[in-house]
Amino acid sequence: MKIRLILLLLVCFSSISFAKITTRFPSSFDDNHLPSDLASKGKELLSYETHYYTQILDHFNYNPQSYQTFQQRYLLNDKYWSGSKKNAPIFVYTGNEGNIEWFTQNTGFMFEIAPHFNALLVFIEHRFYGKSIPYGGNKETAYSNKSTLGYLSSTQALADYATLIIDLKNNLTATDSPVVVFGGSYGGMLAAWFRLKYPHVTIGALASSAPILNFGNITSPYSFNNIITQDFKGESENCYKVIKGIWKQIEDTAKTTGGLEKLRKSFRICKNYISQGSLQNWLSTAFVYTAMTDYPTPSIFLNPLPAYPVKEMCKAIDDPKTGNDMFEKVYGAANIYYNYTGNATCFNLNDHSDPHGLGGWTWQACTEMVMPTDGNNNESIFPVSEWDYNERARFCQSNFGIKPRPDWVTTEFGGNNIERVLKKFGSNIIFFNGLKDPWSGGGVLKDISKSIVAIIAKEGAHHVDLRWSSKEDPEWLRQVRGREVNIISNWLSQYYQSLIDHIY
Amino acid sequence: MKIRLILLLLVCFSSISFAKITTRFPSSFDDNHLPSDLASKGKELLSYETHYYTQILDHFNYNPQSYQTFQQRYLLNDKYWSGSKKNAPIFVYTGNEGNIEWFTQNTGFMFEIAPHFNALLVFIEHRFYGKSIPYGGNKETAYSNKSTLGYLSSTQALADYATLIIDLKNNLTATDSPVVVFGGSYGGMLAAWFRLKYPHVTIGALASSAPILNFGNITSPYSFNNIITQDFKGESENCYKVIKGIWKQIEDTAKTTGGLEKLRKSFRICKNYISQGSLQNWLSTAFVYTAMTDYPTPSIFLNPLPAYPVKEMCKAIDDPKTGNDMFEKVYGAANIYYNYTGNATCFNLNDHSDPHGLGGWTWQACTEMVMPTDGNNNESIFPVSEWDYNERARFCQSNFGIKPRPDWVTTEFGGNNIERVLKKFGSNIIFFNGLKDPWSGGGVLKDISKSIVAIIAKEGAHHVDLRWSSKEDPEWLRQVRGREVNIISNWLSQYYQSLIDHIY
Repeated sequence: MKIRLILLLLVCFSSISFAKITTRFPSSFDDNHLPSDLASKGKELLSYETHYYTQILDHFNYNPQSYQTFQQRYLLNDKYWSGSKKNAPIFVYTGNEGNIEWFTQNTGFMFEIAPHFNALLVFIEHRFYGKSIPYGGNKETAYSNKSTLGYLSSTQALADYATLIIDLKNNLTATDSPVVVFGGSYGGMLAAWFRLKYPHVTIGALASSAPILNFGNITSPYSFNNIITQDFKGESENCYKVIKGIWKQIEDTAKTTGGLEKLRKSFRICKNYISQGSLQNWLSTAFVYTAMTDYPTPSIFLNPLPAYPVKEMCKAIDDPKTGNDMFEKVYGAANIYYNYTGNATCFNLNDHSDPHGLGGWTWQACTEMVMPTDGNNNESIFPVSEWDYNERARFCQSNFGIKPRPDWVTTEFGGNNIERVLKKFGSNIIFFNGLKDPWSGGGVLKDISKSIVAIIAKEGAHHVDLRWSSKEDPEWLRQVRGREVNIISNWLSQYYQSLIDHIY
Repeated sequence: MKIRLILLLLVCFSSISFAKITTRFPSSFDDNHLPSDLASKGKELLSYETHYYTQILDHFNYNPQSYQTFQQRYLLNDKYWSGSKKNAPIFVYTGNEGNIEWFTQNTGFMFEIAPHFNALLVFIEHRFYGKSIPYGGNKETAYSNKSTLGYLSSTQALADYATLIIDLKNNLTATDSPVVVFGGSYGGMLAAWFRLKYPHVTIGALASSAPILNFGNITSPYSFNNIITQDFKGESENCYKVIKGIWKQIEDTAKTTGGLEKLRKSFRICKNYISQGSLQNWLSTAFVYTAMTDYPTPSIFLNPLPAYPVKEMCKAIDDPKTGNDMFEKVYGAANIYYNYTGNATCFNLNDHSDPHGLGGWTWQACTEMVMPTDGNNNESIFPVSEWDYNERARFCQSNFGIKPRPDWVTTEFGGNNIERVLKKFGSNIIFFNGLKDPWSGGGVLKDISKSIVAIIAKEGAHHVDLRWSSKEDPEWLRQVRGREVNIISNWLSQYYQSLIDHIY
């Protein structure tokens, strides 16, 4: 789930169990902040034209809604494309739950490899996000109720991509140009599913950090938080223990007279508002997102982060200077996530801003994206709790008046026994996962067949492979990207060979 | 398209160009007439229980309609099933555009092979047909307008099948039982598409006479009628010439004083009504359906037919007894299709009865099932004409107030360059085609890969392989069925091996 869902659920669940809602997809830097390495390279390479496509609102039913359309945004870069006459490839990013510009800026990999492949770059925005809003672009109307939101679903999004790509290729007279799809996180799930459902539209998919197995009973609901636990424990046993112990200390302190005020001061919370739940949520958010974006070079996600931020957090916690003051230690860790620039003087726990427009994820999480990730077993760095579907269901009922359909994703896209099912079915998918990423527990971590392969980076975080490269990148990251480029090259060679085979 | 579409279009287009609408899927015998071989065998083998499943109306949108349900009928035979403990297989017929009992009775093949495989048999009715009518089973409401009919689409039907099969397996605690899907004609298209879109639900598909390539520009719009032409020409050059010449003779006669009455008497049309167009349609319907169901043994489609009915028609035409009376010759041919029992005393051109409930096909043909089959080139046995999409569009506009989406099927299911696309993608599909079947022109006629294979019978007609076997079946038909059984056996062996591989 996403930022907005955290925030929404924070409010709703803070009194019940704060740690149950720490599940969301982040990405890596926002529109206004380019990380240092992009300051030079990004400005040069990051360029695109904005286009709009008249898209069908309802692909699957033929009622009058089918004939309603909306404007779907896509970004195009044809600087490196050697054109339709050469059947040069088209690389498409299958947009996820937010403003497409944000994902585009976070997918430097595509810009960097485009010249090598003479590829056209296309970044398609997911319906209901960014500027791709049905109902005349009126977000208030589109998001007003379950009838209008009903058209926000993954199957509709995939059909959008198929329709747009086919039409774009026709318009470019590039029907024989091979299409490769790319995506990270939910966008990676869409890329993998797109290859499986629309093999006639794309020859292969790079699905980065795509937790397509985080549905139903396939992946343990403890997996997500256990990976976060291991991330911190792997840095230092003390760091893990301090964080694990902090929740009860906060609880105990909050109960005392003047306790909340003490907490407010310890954690530099602004004078507007504090509660035990919101403070715990604020802290857990920092740990979850930092684990997810534990990149080897400085990055900006929602906030700027140093290289290896989990290590930095644990350094702050383990710092002998803070002695036995656990609040000061954990504040030091949180400060890395929330205040790495050092500009903040206090923190607002009620900051529900949504700069990347991720709010639609709440709807998706209440319909098909029921991903059980919120369990905490004894070892967890967060307080023990069970994943509780009914809690989600109650939230969705009260927010939208609907029941989730927790079995739908496995019905429509599969996932159970995926190795058996896809061993002799399908081809040309790369599943990348960084094992530091809590979402990796729901990813495909083993090769399924010769051409449905898993690339694992033990030290990698959430879709790190798709980010802009940097001189400081570690060797393992260079190797991951190199392997991906090689595999994509092979897909393309095979495709061009098949073109020849079918001519002669 | 289907009977009802013919009839509907007959009325609309008879004044424009009668031969353009001779496109429909037939099947083989109706509820009340069992062919002679089934009279003994069928009565013994044909048995099933009727069940209903509470199905979701709209799988793809999460608006309030998603939470509407309807009762979907399925027929079950567990006589031969050796049960879930043995992971015994489940054979599912993916129902097409009509009453499921009709298709079940026409798919003796499944009953005949079930004992060999110890298989459970399930025949699922397609939504909006038979007794599987949304809106509380009220057909009048369900068919009343484009809003209610909107939920009648192939993608919804496939999702119905996935949902029902998964649920049925759960209820039978048979989650590891492999599912093989079977279908003929449109049902065969659905079976093939189901394997491609839902490989996690079915291990393989037998798609019999499934013209999945009869969309867009993939197959020539002359193909359908050219195959009919060859069917008759192959019997006798004279037969072909007589039929080819009859249309103009009817036209010329109709123009003369008393001409229509002469035609009425010549063709034994009842006294109620005759027009040139309706007569021509009536005749062309006989030639089209007879070609389609040119089976090697006696059968009953809408009407009873002898073995090799095309040959019988040409015998009637070539009969020296009728001298040079072309009307008498062609009447003799039509009489084989319309009156093989000899009971009819006159024919009613306005008989729009629809005993198998195929009416929904008109809607499907006006939305996604735009199959260009109505062109006639110079060689055609029917008058020269071009396939005209606009004619279809006008019909659909005036009937339903909607525009067809002729590109949708190739967008959603593919079809273009299918050999290239599926060469290294997908597995375990048998495409059977009989080359006498006019629909075979839109079928997959070549092996695509080792496990996506084409079985061709030069002398076969529309899904002849799925019919009950008979002692009189020719050797080629026995061989076709034998090959199908062998291939399905291999799929199952591989599946059971993969179960073992994943345990150890």
